[in-house]
Amino acid sequence: MFDQIAILAPGLLGASVARAARHYGAAKRITLCARRPETRLQLKGQPWCDHVADTPTEAVRDAQLVIICTPVDQIGPLTHQIAPHLSAGAIVTDVGSVKSEICRLGEKALAAPASLATFVGSHPMAGSQHTGWEHSRADLFVGRVVFVTPLSTTDVKATEKVAAFWTALAADVATVEPDAHDEIVAHISHLPQILASTLCASLAKKDVRWRNFGGGGLRDTTRIASSDPKLWKTILEQNRDEVLRAVRAYQEELHGMERALANRDWFEVQAILERGKAYRDPFRPIP
Amino acid sequence: MFDQIAILAPGLLGASVARAARHYGAAKRITLCARRPETRLQLKGQPWCDHVADTPTEAVRDAQLVIICTPVDQIGPLTHQIAPHLSAGAIVTDVGSVKSEICRLGEKALAAPASLATFVGSHPMAGSQHTGWEHSRADLFVGRVVFVTPLSTTDVKATEKVAAFWTALAADVATVEPDAHDEIVAHISHLPQILASTLCASLAKKDVRWRNFGGGGLRDTTRIASSDPKLWKTILEQNRDEVLRAVRAYQEELHGMERALANRDWFEVQAILERGKAYRDPFRPIP
Repeated sequence: MFDQIAILAPGLLGASVARAARHYGAAKRITLCARRPETRLQLKGQPWCDHVADTPTEAVRDAQLVIICTPVDQIGPLTHQIAPHLSAGAIVTDVGSVKSEICRLGEKALAAPASLATFVGSHPMAGSQHTGWEHSRADLFVGRVVFVTPLSTTDVKATEKVAAFWTALAADVATVEPDAHDEIVAHISHLPQILASTLCASLAKKDVRWRNFGGGGLRDTTRIASSDPKLWKTILEQNRDEVLRAVRAYQEELHGMERALANRDWFEVQAILERGKAYRDPFRPIP
Repeated sequence: MFDQIAILAPGLLGASVARAARHYGAAKRITLCARRPETRLQLKGQPWCDHVADTPTEAVRDAQLVIICTPVDQIGPLTHQIAPHLSAGAIVTDVGSVKSEICRLGEKALAAPASLATFVGSHPMAGSQHTGWEHSRADLFVGRVVFVTPLSTTDVKATEKVAAFWTALAADVATVEPDAHDEIVAHISHLPQILASTLCASLAKKDVRWRNFGGGGLRDTTRIASSDPKLWKTILEQNRDEVLRAVRAYQEELHGMERALANRDWFEVQAILERGKAYRDPFRPIP
């Protein structure tokens, strides 16, 4: 358990971390820091918030764990900004969807001779098409995978503390290097997002009233197309190379299906469907 | 309300029709006909089943409405088989996912001079990745779209009766011609199925343990990849031309995204994501 944690820019994920940390007793004191004054006022009334700081530098003072929950392009700069204000032995983590660039920037920001703090990246696979702290839940991480992504140079003790924190929130921790993480999520998260969004963008060119005819299949397949485009643009930007590789591998597969349909090769059509089913059937249930 | 309905080959959809017809009082007497003796035994004990027939020809005797729930490639032949045994004024419908070929075969099968029965196609947008009558539910059609697909030559009264039947089961009926139906479902149902299946088939070529890391996005986007491959092969076979058109239009869209990523055209990447979100956000909630 940490005596004090600071959560910077609490939206859906950050506020859920606060709720869960309170619920599971993973932190004695929880400080939140939000940019907008009206959000700060609202957070002040919450039982999972002990203190609301006006600035990040104020928020991180005395915190043993700092969790940065901004969009991915602001995590590096913010780590740089708070670096001189961190306590000795403090750990900084984040909840960004891409890890290579962030972890390198984070380590660099805390590498100054005076700094005794450590950066260890995290990525909870527990987003939603919704954003904002109003949608937060204490059980958001229960049974969900949280990636913890140390560089080969990262302090092992700090990595273990971050992993233990997520485990305390009932998450399943997977520890992988940032590069491996980015390859994995390009396939299992960023590619599905692109498919859902481009499917909707493609259907938008036809009669849009057709969407009212859709069943559960269309509904589920496209749910995440409602996600925040600006947020996702930034994620795709940071993981461009891996995402491109995943998209191109997928295009090959789809082209194979198109060719089989064009050739009336029904044996091959069924074989592709069978391979998809064999992959999907063993998915572990989510609580 | 119908005095007697017959449901041939009740799986998830057919048994749900029986349950719903009983629940909403849409039929006084419900006859089911299953091919396998053990299924017939199980059905006999159900409160939403008044009689279990051994053969389709026995089942349809005295029925005013016959609902064929076989895979799509068997609907035409089965209509042909039962045609001589239908009562005068009987209506035959089905629950197949493709309509052009089925409706033409159905009309032809009932066009013999002696036949006084009418074929009117139906397609409830209420499937699931599950099959089998054990998964059936009385509320499966509540708030779901059911297509009713008369040909221009189909008797208007018969069409109205089929529409009224589905409305009685709390479904939202959409009446469209078979060709228009097939174009619509190629886009909003068959294309999403292909995307889910090919996404899984593509991911199956990478480290399959990655699937354990997946969040709700991967889960929802791929759910229907667990559907029955043989059933879907037959659906894609019957709707090949429209499906190919939909797949190719989608490939264009995905190629646009790939190009934008390759060119680092982040303005265009975000624009595609915005178009997808604008299409998805107004989806009507399903009960």
